Amino acid sequence: MNKPQNFVLDVDGVMNDGKIYYNETGKILKVFGAHDSDGLKILKQKLDIKFISADKRGFEISKKRIVDDMGYELNLVTEEERYNYMHVRFDFKTLIYMADGHHDAKILNECLYGIATNNSTLISKTSAKYITKSNGGEGAVYEACLHIKEKFNF
Amino acid sequence: MNKPQNFVLDVDGVMNDGKIYYNETGKILKVFGAHDSDGLKILKQKLDIKFISADKRGFEISKKRIVDDMGYELNLVTEEERYNYMHVRFDFKTLIYMADGHHDAKILNECLYGIATNNSTLISKTSAKYITKSNGGEGAVYEACLHIKEKFNF
Amino acid sequence: MNKPQNFVLDVDGVMNDGKIYYNETGKILKVFGAHDSDGLKILKQKLDIKFISADKRGFEISKKRIVDDMGYELNLVTEEERYNYMHVRFDFKTLIYMADGHHDAKILNECLYGIATNNSTLISKTSAKYITKSNGGEGAVYEACLHIKEKFNF
Amino acid sequence: MNKPQNFVLDVDGVMNDGKIYYNETGKILKVFGAHDSDGLKILKQKLDIKFISADKRGFEISKKRIVDDMGYELNLVTEEERYNYMHVRFDFKTLIYMADGHHDAKILNECLYGIATNNSTLISKTSAKYITKSNGGEGAVYEACLHIKEKFNF
Repeated sequence: MNKPQNFVLDVDGVMNDGKIYYNETGKILKVFGAHDSDGLKILKQKLDIKFISADKRGFEISKKRIVDDMGYELNLVTEEERYNYMHVRFDFKTLIYMADGHHDAKILNECLYGIATNNSTLISKTSAKYITKSNGGEGAVYEACLHIKEKFNF
Repeated sequence: MNKPQNFVLDVDGVMNDGKIYYNETGKILKVFGAHDSDGLKILKQKLDIKFISADKRGFEISKKRIVDDMGYELNLVTEEERYNYMHVRFDFKTLIYMADGHHDAKILNECLYGIATNNSTLISKTSAKYITKSNGGEGAVYEACLHIKEKFNF
Repeated sequence: MNKPQNFVLDVDGVMNDGKIYYNETGKILKVFGAHDSDGLKILKQKLDIKFISADKRGFEISKKRIVDDMGYELNLVTEEERYNYMHVRFDFKTLIYMADGHHDAKILNECLYGIATNNSTLISKTSAKYITKSNGGEGAVYEACLHIKEKFNF
Repeated sequence: MNKPQNFVLDVDGVMNDGKIYYNETGKILKVFGAHDSDGLKILKQKLDIKFISADKRGFEISKKRIVDDMGYELNLVTEEERYNYMHVRFDFKTLIYMADGHHDAKILNECLYGIATNNSTLISKTSAKYITKSNGGEGAVYEACLHIKEKFNF
């Protein structure tokens, strides 16, 4: 298997539980899990780590967590654009992709190493090469990072 | 079995976990799950999808999610009125109804195809024809949509 | 067994999950479950239903839910006072008591019928006559109400 | 085994579920569990109880809960400093340490009695002498306190 160079992660359902906390004015909270940030730090020197999100309304919350607090790049990409967006920017032969959604299956299937969370949609799980035991927001990314480190000898 | 034409869903306990987040001024948050919106999009062209809710105090929050963000019709119907309300407006022979509550059992039982969530009240579960593996707010609607698509050949 | 006349419930851990949502100014949210209110309505004509809580800082939130929205009496009673408070006001021979805490065991043991939630402290569970399958805030009170109705032939 | 004299607990993942509730302005909520405060009161006369936290951005929330409401000392210690910080201040031969993180393993291993929560990182769990059945924020500290009381004959 090729040596991976990029690690791209979806935000919602992967870095959190995918749930949306609504009040009368709309989306107001997302819940991010413990340990995931520690996991990513282990891979930081070896892989170029980036995030994407299709959630326009909650983007400022995701940005606060991913960009401001954790220091990673995050881009807003609709689900329809996602496959082409990824193809233009990344070599799938050296790409690790981690996601959970209905529209992520094709990328998970075609990239070097697709990772789905335990609470992913069925189509994502059957398209991924590795499924974490943990749910998104409950250690899935930390678990994936330790697995990547071992699997690819980082 | 008849071809269904309408799909009516209860909001609380179905599109969310039914929990109510209170501060000192009353209800302030409801937590909606991931993927459900994607599931409904699959059926949108085939079924007329509508929502009802008995929750008067939290109605503005439900409205923000269901009407403003997801674009579906939502009506406030008390539990006592619910059965008659449904009978006047819908042909039960072509109705799929998804709900979880103590007062939904009769409709679940009489409509074409009643669906209860895993965390429904016992009386709803015994009245429904299909029970999702997932809880409300944790993929129950997404799961129901995929099941409907397969079951009714959409 | 005597016919019960009073049903007294602890709030935290029983009507909710006992968790406390803190921001920088202190307690700000409690999460109440679905269906419990429907369950209590079933017993309302048969039993005098009251609530107690030892949570001083979160009392306004509990009051909003229990008193203002659900219409029941709620009193603030410290854990130390609780046993005597209950003895002065209620005949234990006709009392159903539902609670979860370290300090509730003695009342659960001595009253007519003690009910603990699944996520109660061990000492509460061993002192109760009935343990709900559900956790507090996840249907425990609804489940207890249906059980009481059947058990005491209401 | 020596008689323990100090009980030091990590806050996030131990006293709560480690999850971080974000809005657009950053961390705004932490969720603390029930019963833990009752558990610590049991040991208060026997052990010197202190807390540490590496969470700088959420420190004011932890302070509100641990210091203002529960009355314990809490210090902000980065993960990198943690091992040395502990060694300078505490005699490991009489120290009980309870934590969950990637960087806590060495202290858990070397102190008199290391306790990890059920949802700790694997490395913490394998370094601890006792693992609670409960998750952090769901009774882990209460459970640990009852275990300590029995184990050390307090």
